[in-house]
Amino acid sequence: MYDVVIIGSGPAGLSASIYAKRAGLKAVTLEQNPMSGGQVLNTYEVDNYPGLSGIGGFDLGLKFREHADKLACEFKEASVRTVRREEPEGFTVVTEQEEIKTRTVLAAMGATHAKLNIPGEEEFSGMGVSYCATCDGAFFKGKVTAVIGGGDVAVEDAVFLARGCEKVYLLHRRDELRAAAVLQKEVMEQPNVEILWDTVAERIEGDEQVKALRIKNVKTGEEKSLAVDGVFVAVGIIPASDILKDVAECDAKGYLQAGEDCALDTPGLFAAGDVRKKKLRQIVTAVADGANAVTSILEYLQSRTV
Amino acid sequence: MYDVVIIGSGPAGLSASIYAKRAGLKAVTLEQNPMSGGQVLNTYEVDNYPGLSGIGGFDLGLKFREHADKLACEFKEASVRTVRREEPEGFTVVTEQEEIKTRTVLAAMGATHAKLNIPGEEEFSGMGVSYCATCDGAFFKGKVTAVIGGGDVAVEDAVFLARGCEKVYLLHRRDELRAAAVLQKEVMEQPNVEILWDTVAERIEGDEQVKALRIKNVKTGEEKSLAVDGVFVAVGIIPASDILKDVAECDAKGYLQAGEDCALDTPGLFAAGDVRKKKLRQIVTAVADGANAVTSILEYLQSRTV
Repeated sequence: MYDVVIIGSGPAGLSASIYAKRAGLKAVTLEQNPMSGGQVLNTYEVDNYPGLSGIGGFDLGLKFREHADKLACEFKEASVRTVRREEPEGFTVVTEQEEIKTRTVLAAMGATHAKLNIPGEEEFSGMGVSYCATCDGAFFKGKVTAVIGGGDVAVEDAVFLARGCEKVYLLHRRDELRAAAVLQKEVMEQPNVEILWDTVAERIEGDEQVKALRIKNVKTGEEKSLAVDGVFVAVGIIPASDILKDVAECDAKGYLQAGEDCALDTPGLFAAGDVRKKKLRQIVTAVADGANAVTSILEYLQSRTV
Repeated sequence: MYDVVIIGSGPAGLSASIYAKRAGLKAVTLEQNPMSGGQVLNTYEVDNYPGLSGIGGFDLGLKFREHADKLACEFKEASVRTVRREEPEGFTVVTEQEEIKTRTVLAAMGATHAKLNIPGEEEFSGMGVSYCATCDGAFFKGKVTAVIGGGDVAVEDAVFLARGCEKVYLLHRRDELRAAAVLQKEVMEQPNVEILWDTVAERIEGDEQVKALRIKNVKTGEEKSLAVDGVFVAVGIIPASDILKDVAECDAKGYLQAGEDCALDTPGLFAAGDVRKKKLRQIVTAVADGANAVTSILEYLQSRTV
């Protein structure tokens, strides 16, 4: 019987592993992939994790894992199918390999960015194609970028990028944005943002880096190329909360609803990192979640033994 | 006119500096001391900041500052006296050196060490009484010291001092420590650390230097003197929120009341790090605050331009 099973080994899960070990908890971290680090692994360069400036995402993932290994944290490679609640308390984490009994579960499965699924997108991922303006926008200072999407995140990204980029195209496949009115007003006031209505991205082109974006007007059928240095894809985030659907409530978008303390409504169940409903999904907020979650788990376990 | 003046250069302030710079904000970080890093600087070893395992606090403070310097973040050494709200909006940050106009203020002043308030404490401060084992421990090599407190810092201090001191007493007024389990285990394994349970310090005695600590067992009422050369006080922290008392509400302990978004009730005013009311005061939660605060500041500034 574990004190906590941590599902996921991105920054939130690894931070929780470190904090759980230092707190003396019997903990295991389950990772679906043979490599720890989560989305960080696929990030070309991370320059907003204080203390490790300009580090490669792969290296940062390794450093997080090494830190946990130095503390002798326990890891298992396992694909989790579901989490079952037991009476009177505790959970069974059902993986493809085994069933694991635990007093608490920390959900740190993260999220994935919805893809465009167009040619060049995967090829240039991390070489001009990004899914996070907050993370990567600073690398495109003085350059030309395109944001694809029409929701809040896309419009926020365009406004954010406009501060540093020479020019920002905002492509939206419809003739009106879905984003909040204040955001729409704001993006339209940016002199260096050009909104391309009724427009879809067809293909991302380049050599070692992105050079151009092939676009098409869905009403006229006209196609042309935009010379761009970066393409920011903002067509949605998909939280990886499926495996908890039997034991926890998610919001309409699939996020697990916990506050800063990372405690879900279901006693004994906690959520940390990108899978949690919150404002800012960053490495720094994920590692903070890991620490906050372990603090809440300790309090929960203590309340059960008193 | 700055977009944001960040007051304080500990982990929260430095993280905010990094995020503000990357977001294209005109920002300046004010630091009272010639060294950035805040309380981290006085920490012997930090082993819970993921990715930098077992790093010295001083080195971690340097790394944070170097990161900000690489991004050309602006810093000023300045003692802030007060923050004044201006009409119709914005603030003036009044320092001993100048008055700085800004649209928003991020309070990241951190916290300071609580005092025992017993006879001899102030008199022998710097002459045997210390609030920082990392800073002053080396002066007590081969000597006898006492640490007062029962939390993580007190226990860490006792372990640190045990490396060089002949003997270390750890006084705690209760019969169990609040510190993390791994720390408790570690301190109990030190052959030259003696834990005095249910014990409070009554008086610090000496001539030019500390010579003895008068202690009392709160259960038996027994009093006695310990011959010690140094007394390390580790009984908690006081948030450094005084300079904001004219513009923001604090709770009973002096913490600035902001949620995870770091926004205070006063529009344009934000709080990050140890000075904010929150559950867990750690480096990871401070750096997350810095990022969350900048996100809220961006939203605030955008709402004001529309």
